[in-house]
Amino acid sequence: MNEDLRKNIRQIAPYTAGERPDRPGIVKLNTNENPYPPSPGVIEAFRSLAPEDFRLYPDAESTDFRRAAAKFYGLAENQVFPANGSDDALALIFLTFFNSGKPVLFPDVTYSFYPVWSRFFGVPFETAPLDADFRINPSDYSRENGGVVLANPNAPTGVALGPDEIRYILDKNPGVIVALDEAYIDFGGISAVPLLREYDNLIIVHTFSKYRSLAGMRLACALGSAELIACLGAAKNSYNSYPISRAGQCIAAAAFADDAYYRACAARIALTREKFVGDMAKLGFRTLPSAANFVFTAHEKMKAKEIFLYLKEKDIYVRHWDLPRIGNHLRITVGTEEQMEKVVTTIKEFPEVNKNHHRKIGAKTHE
Amino acid sequence: MNEDLRKNIRQIAPYTAGERPDRPGIVKLNTNENPYPPSPGVIEAFRSLAPEDFRLYPDAESTDFRRAAAKFYGLAENQVFPANGSDDALALIFLTFFNSGKPVLFPDVTYSFYPVWSRFFGVPFETAPLDADFRINPSDYSRENGGVVLANPNAPTGVALGPDEIRYILDKNPGVIVALDEAYIDFGGISAVPLLREYDNLIIVHTFSKYRSLAGMRLACALGSAELIACLGAAKNSYNSYPISRAGQCIAAAAFADDAYYRACAARIALTREKFVGDMAKLGFRTLPSAANFVFTAHEKMKAKEIFLYLKEKDIYVRHWDLPRIGNHLRITVGTEEQMEKVVTTIKEFPEVNKNHHRKIGAKTHE
Repeated sequence: MNEDLRKNIRQIAPYTAGERPDRPGIVKLNTNENPYPPSPGVIEAFRSLAPEDFRLYPDAESTDFRRAAAKFYGLAENQVFPANGSDDALALIFLTFFNSGKPVLFPDVTYSFYPVWSRFFGVPFETAPLDADFRINPSDYSRENGGVVLANPNAPTGVALGPDEIRYILDKNPGVIVALDEAYIDFGGISAVPLLREYDNLIIVHTFSKYRSLAGMRLACALGSAELIACLGAAKNSYNSYPISRAGQCIAAAAFADDAYYRACAARIALTREKFVGDMAKLGFRTLPSAANFVFTAHEKMKAKEIFLYLKEKDIYVRHWDLPRIGNHLRITVGTEEQMEKVVTTIKEFPEVNKNHHRKIGAKTHE
Repeated sequence: MNEDLRKNIRQIAPYTAGERPDRPGIVKLNTNENPYPPSPGVIEAFRSLAPEDFRLYPDAESTDFRRAAAKFYGLAENQVFPANGSDDALALIFLTFFNSGKPVLFPDVTYSFYPVWSRFFGVPFETAPLDADFRINPSDYSRENGGVVLANPNAPTGVALGPDEIRYILDKNPGVIVALDEAYIDFGGISAVPLLREYDNLIIVHTFSKYRSLAGMRLACALGSAELIACLGAAKNSYNSYPISRAGQCIAAAAFADDAYYRACAARIALTREKFVGDMAKLGFRTLPSAANFVFTAHEKMKAKEIFLYLKEKDIYVRHWDLPRIGNHLRITVGTEEQMEKVVTTIKEFPEVNKNHHRKIGAKTHE
C-alpha cells in the first residue's frame, strides 16, 4: 500500500473481546454468556421460521420486536429502538447524541468499548475514577459535560448503582443525554426503566446476550422518549436501514413472552454466584458485591495474572486485564453450579493459593 | 425535550427504502428482491442450526463465512470482510477510508445511501453527472478526490461499466480507495474481483440480498487487499465486534457452496428481464440496457408518476423518485415470469398508455 493510500485510513485501537477457545471440555467463563439455553418459546419461534422467506427484506422497523418490547416494558412502541446487539445501539447513541464538543463522562474502569467509540467517532471524553471500593461516585457526574454513559451494574466490577444515585445523576444533567447500559441489570440490579416517565434525558440499553441467552443472535434494544428514539431511528437509517434479520426479529419478540423462564434462570445464576463468592472467600479471594452474572475478584496474596494463566492451562477461561487498578483482579462469569465448583476445586489445587491460604488461616500442615 | 438536549443531536435526512406493503396478493417489485428462494443448501444449513447454542456469542471473525468466501472468490481468507448487509460494509468503508478531507466522488444518479453516509460521517462529496444516456463517464473520476464510490451496475439505472472503464478509473486513482458496490453484478455485469490481484486501491462489496436470495438475513462481504481488509476489521471492532449472528454465518457459508443453483436463478431472471423489456417496448417504454435484476424505464408520453400511482392502485409496487433527471422513470424489479406478465397486462389496461400507444403506432381505432 502506498503512503497516499495509508495516510487517509482511520487508525484506531479497537475493542478486544475475550478469547474464544473452541475445544470440547473447556470451561468458558470469560464473555459473560448465560449457561442456560434460550427459552422454549424462542426455540419454537426459531423452528417455525420459513427460510424460503429469507429472500425478502426484513421489516426495517422491526415492528413485532418493538411491539413485544413495548408490551413487556409498559412503554409505547415508538419508545423502543431495536438493534443488532447492544454495541450497535451504543455506537449509534455515541454518534447521535454526543455532538456538543464537550467531553462525555464515564468511569475510568468500565466497559472498555466506551473510549473506543469516543475515539472512533471523534467524541471527546473524560473519565471519572471509581473510588477505592470500585464504586461510581455520582457527584463526579455533576460537572459540565457532553453526555454521560454508565454501565449499571458496572463492568467489569459487577457493582450496581441504586435508583437514588441514578436519579441524582439524571437531575444533575438535564441538558445532556444520560445513557445507561443495563446489560446485566436482571441479575440483581434495579432497572431505571420506570424513570423514563420522568426523565427525557435518559436512554437505556438492554442486550439480549446475557439475561435472554441470545448472544449468538445479536439482539438488543434502546429505550427512551419517543423523541430520542426517533433520532436513533434516523441515525439507523443513515447507517444501515435493515440491521436485524428476519430470524432475529422473530426470536426477539418470542423472548419477551417467556420472561418467567428467564427469571428462573437468572435466579439460579444469582444463587450460584453467591455460593461461588462464599467458596472463593474461603480460599482468600475478596470479591466485589456483584449484581451481575459475573464477579470481579482478587486474591489477598496471589497475583491475578498467575491465577489466570494457571486456570487457562487447566482449560478454564476467565478474563484478566493487564491494566492499572484492575490488574490484580479476575472477572469470572457465573456459569452452572458444576462449572463454578470446577473453578473452586481447580484453584484449590493451585499450589501457590494453597500455600498462601493455609498460611493465612494458620493451618499447621502443608501438603 | 429542552433546547439544550435538542441542539446536540445529530440531525440527518436518512435513506428511504421502498415501501413494504404486507397484504397477500401484492406484486412487490420495488426493492429488487430475488423472486426465487435461497438454495437448498442454505435451507438445509438453516435447519441444521441448534438454537440452544444461541446463548453463545458468534465467532467475531466469522471464520467459516470468510473461508467459504475465500474459496469461492479465489482469495485469501484475510481478503474477506463479512458484514451485516452491504450497507454495514459500505458505511464502514466511508468511515474508514474517506478521511482525507477531499471530496469523495460518485454519480449524481446512484444508490441514494452514498450522500447519506457522507453527511452522517462528515465526509465531503461531489457528484459527477451521468451522461444523457444515464451512463457513467469514467473521465469524471480522474480529478483530485478523497475516494470514489461506484455501484456497478449502477442503481437505479441498471447500466454497467465494463472492465476497461473500471481499470481506467483505478489507474487514475492510485492514492485513494475506489469502492465498487457490485450488488447486482451477477445478473449481467463483469465483476472486478479478478482486478484485486492488480490494484491495492480497490475494494469490492457483494451483498447476499439479491443474487443469493438472502435479503432477510442481512449478509454481505467486502473484498480487498489483506491490508485494507485489516483496516475494515479494526473499524468493525471499533463499532460492533459481533455484527453477524450464528444463523447468518452458517447460512452465508452454505450459500457459496450452492452457486450452480444461484446461477440458474440469475439466468432465469435475465431471460425474464429481456422478455419484459421487449413487451414494454411494444407499449412505448424505453428501457435502459440493464445488467441487473431490475430495469429503469420511461414511457415516451406518459408521466412515470401517473403509471406508478396506477400500478399501486392495482397492487403492483414499483419504485419512483420525484427527483430531477429521474422523475420520469420507473425502477421495476424483475420478478417471476408471471409477475412481469401481470405488470405488462396491467399497464396495457391503463387507458392513458393505451391511448398514447395506439396513437403512436398509428392504430385507427380507439376503445
